[in-house]
Amino acid sequence: MSNLEQLLARYNDVRLLGQANAVLGWDQQCYMPHGGGAARATQTAVISRITHEMFTSTPTGDLLAAAEQDNTGSDAASKDAQILRVMRRDYDQETKLPTDLVEALTRESMLAHEIWVDARKNDDFKTFAPTLQKLLDLVRRQADCLGYEETPYDALLDRYEPGLKSSDAAKVFDSIKPAIASILAKVRATPEIDDSVLRRVFPEAQQIAFGEKVVRYLGFDFNHGRQDKAVHPFCTGLDRTDVRITTRVEENWLPCALMGTMHEAGHGMYEQGFLPEDDGTPLGSAVSLGFHESQSRLWENTVGRSQAFWNKFYPELQAAFPGVLDDVSLAQFYKAINKVQPSLIRVEADEVTYNLHVLMRFELEKQLVEGTLAVKDLPDAWNAKVKEYLGIDVPSNAQGCLQDVHWSAGLIGYFPTYSVGTVLAAQLYDAALAQTPGLATDIENADYTQLLGWMRTNVHHPGRRYLPMELVERACNAPFSAEPYIAYLTTKYGAIYGA
Amino acid sequence: MSNLEQLLARYNDVRLLGQANAVLGWDQQCYMPHGGGAARATQTAVISRITHEMFTSTPTGDLLAAAEQDNTGSDAASKDAQILRVMRRDYDQETKLPTDLVEALTRESMLAHEIWVDARKNDDFKTFAPTLQKLLDLVRRQADCLGYEETPYDALLDRYEPGLKSSDAAKVFDSIKPAIASILAKVRATPEIDDSVLRRVFPEAQQIAFGEKVVRYLGFDFNHGRQDKAVHPFCTGLDRTDVRITTRVEENWLPCALMGTMHEAGHGMYEQGFLPEDDGTPLGSAVSLGFHESQSRLWENTVGRSQAFWNKFYPELQAAFPGVLDDVSLAQFYKAINKVQPSLIRVEADEVTYNLHVLMRFELEKQLVEGTLAVKDLPDAWNAKVKEYLGIDVPSNAQGCLQDVHWSAGLIGYFPTYSVGTVLAAQLYDAALAQTPGLATDIENADYTQLLGWMRTNVHHPGRRYLPMELVERACNAPFSAEPYIAYLTTKYGAIYGA
Repeated sequence: MSNLEQLLARYNDVRLLGQANAVLGWDQQCYMPHGGGAARATQTAVISRITHEMFTSTPTGDLLAAAEQDNTGSDAASKDAQILRVMRRDYDQETKLPTDLVEALTRESMLAHEIWVDARKNDDFKTFAPTLQKLLDLVRRQADCLGYEETPYDALLDRYEPGLKSSDAAKVFDSIKPAIASILAKVRATPEIDDSVLRRVFPEAQQIAFGEKVVRYLGFDFNHGRQDKAVHPFCTGLDRTDVRITTRVEENWLPCALMGTMHEAGHGMYEQGFLPEDDGTPLGSAVSLGFHESQSRLWENTVGRSQAFWNKFYPELQAAFPGVLDDVSLAQFYKAINKVQPSLIRVEADEVTYNLHVLMRFELEKQLVEGTLAVKDLPDAWNAKVKEYLGIDVPSNAQGCLQDVHWSAGLIGYFPTYSVGTVLAAQLYDAALAQTPGLATDIENADYTQLLGWMRTNVHHPGRRYLPMELVERACNAPFSAEPYIAYLTTKYGAIYGA
Repeated sequence: MSNLEQLLARYNDVRLLGQANAVLGWDQQCYMPHGGGAARATQTAVISRITHEMFTSTPTGDLLAAAEQDNTGSDAASKDAQILRVMRRDYDQETKLPTDLVEALTRESMLAHEIWVDARKNDDFKTFAPTLQKLLDLVRRQADCLGYEETPYDALLDRYEPGLKSSDAAKVFDSIKPAIASILAKVRATPEIDDSVLRRVFPEAQQIAFGEKVVRYLGFDFNHGRQDKAVHPFCTGLDRTDVRITTRVEENWLPCALMGTMHEAGHGMYEQGFLPEDDGTPLGSAVSLGFHESQSRLWENTVGRSQAFWNKFYPELQAAFPGVLDDVSLAQFYKAINKVQPSLIRVEADEVTYNLHVLMRFELEKQLVEGTLAVKDLPDAWNAKVKEYLGIDVPSNAQGCLQDVHWSAGLIGYFPTYSVGTVLAAQLYDAALAQTPGLATDIENADYTQLLGWMRTNVHHPGRRYLPMELVERACNAPFSAEPYIAYLTTKYGAIYGA
């Protein structure tokens, strides 16, 4: 075997152990009995430790160096060169992290899950605070090991969105804030949309069946994936051939499961879309969380909240819930599903206020990581931010700083990727339209075959071959820009609220 | 750290990786999408390989030898000595097996699952035959590596039931055959019991709820366990604190899920019953599959098909399915649930014919392993045995040689433990009654607290401290014997069929 082949054999063991840990994580959130949490934390921690040791060991480094040597002077666009670039980046990152830290982060974030679930259920931030402190200490140590120039937050953010700095993220937020403010001013000047039709009784089993029907139509492959219920919806690709999405159902709030299912299916189709020939290499996985989120937001919003989509699916929705929506017109429903209203829960926010949720989370977690905000002061700081950005009062920590799973899972330095992805979704959608003859007509007819095809070719298949910003340029023939997103929001909500 | 402590730290990694593989196996049978099978096989195979390498590596052997040296002359009944005995046995077994064989067996048996599921569904033995041949070749190689005196089957059987040989198993069958034949003669001489009441419509959701209520009452802990649906019911202890049981529901056949749930919960309570202080050592797990089966058969049959149990639960069953059983008396129901009738499916067989299913399976798989029966001839051989032992014709391979999951899972050399367990259940039950004041009265009142307590103390807590036959002696103050089982069957079915 060549050095590269030996390196890939080693890498593949690491990859497969990572997949095993993903199964354990999925099970924890979907099915694990409450009392199994401690054992699960130990199981995943030991796999993380073994994985990290295998990947950062001297033999891996030697094989990598030898394979790079073998590859000197060869085409930089060759697959071998692409593999070696990604491997080098990962290896250099991972070798900066001591194994005990990797193991501790895994264990603590697994243990934290049950603590967070209970704290949220009991609206009791105090029981979660020591865990959050422990996780913050660990990620801060992680940032120090990885190194950074401006803020430790950058070291963390870079793991989720390679190349993005806090200052870049701040610029994205700055560029979209005026458009959001302008739409919100129009919203306030317009009579409130009545979305009470979404709060009628929609039985759980039918909601799940309808959501699965929709995402099967969009292209989610249930032979290589499935959907389950979870406290906090997520998607996890255990493998290209086994992608799990989850949803949360509220019988009195239709969008929760339905839009959530489309969102997670967007993630899922990305995970199902890597090239089979990249199996066993580091190329067949997501380039960044921003790109991941671009796919989920695309299918949830650009498609799932569009007029053309509902032209097709509204009659089917009415039929799926006999009698429930007979008196509601398509026009009424379309407005209801696109109602803009500042609210408490990010994952259920409308398209306009969504980024404000992300912005405040970004600011708060940056302060937590930098040490300028103490954990004990988080609830007050949270509530003040919600008041400042969204203009509403937070009635409980369960609906406030305990709402999301991320911090309990050690996913800190992650939130800005939600806005990067939201912005990117619009840019990719515009590029697909510009490059694909007939796509506009297809979309008018709610036929998304070509849209998914474009994403497959331009986003899914490349996997990790290029850095995120390179991939934007290749796909869109233009640098990353918030302009398409601003135009999309302004046009769409101008029509809904400006008329 | 002492040598023993270092050895245990190493062992614990192996144990935790094994637990991770158990999660992957559970998921495969309960939730994995069909197309995920190949990836799952690779994931589990690599974990098996790494686990085997870690456990059989030179450092493990050196630590084991050093710890044994440290322990020389110390009390043989000490926990350290017990740990070292089990570790030595496992180490000596595992080092006989080459890692590539371990990895191949895991991969092929995972791949085989989906093939078996399809073959059974399509009643197509031919599509399963090459897989079965591959698995037989692998286990035969395994037997050759492990070594044996009389037959390669013994090497396989010993992994499930340490110390038991084929000739011992044959003796057990020989000792119980006359009693079975005598009861079957009585059954044939008596008008057939009408069990059509069990074939009325019992909706799935209520069946599952009732089954879970029953096993919660018996002592299965749902904070440290759960139940899901699977094609072939099983129990897997991912950890003492996370035990998964599964069931299969037929809406027109009540015993399938109900008795199956009690059966698996029996396994589950054993897995939940190991001593917390044995965590992380090889002591806190099952001593043998025969003992495992003794627990499942005890709760399924000795308890779950008893008059006292149904005195309490029959009114609750009637209430759980309103109107369905109003016209059926307790006496009728008790007879129906204990009806003896030769049938096709082992897991649904009555208590009397059950062992005949096991016996024929034992004889067939012994021939397969020894090479005296070719895979292609299995269906005919199967059908002939069913005719010989049970007197009935097999209408399809799906209900014949494809009915059970074991062979596809590489579990070959396993079947005799079902009869060992069935026989042992009666012996343990009698011992519990003899040793526990007031237990007979409790059982009359369907109070099983003391019965479970006795099993905890005498079977669960000892874990793997003693060899199976030693544990029988310690628990029952007598050697392993089929007499209690013969007496149990004869008395119970004499009353039902002899009156």
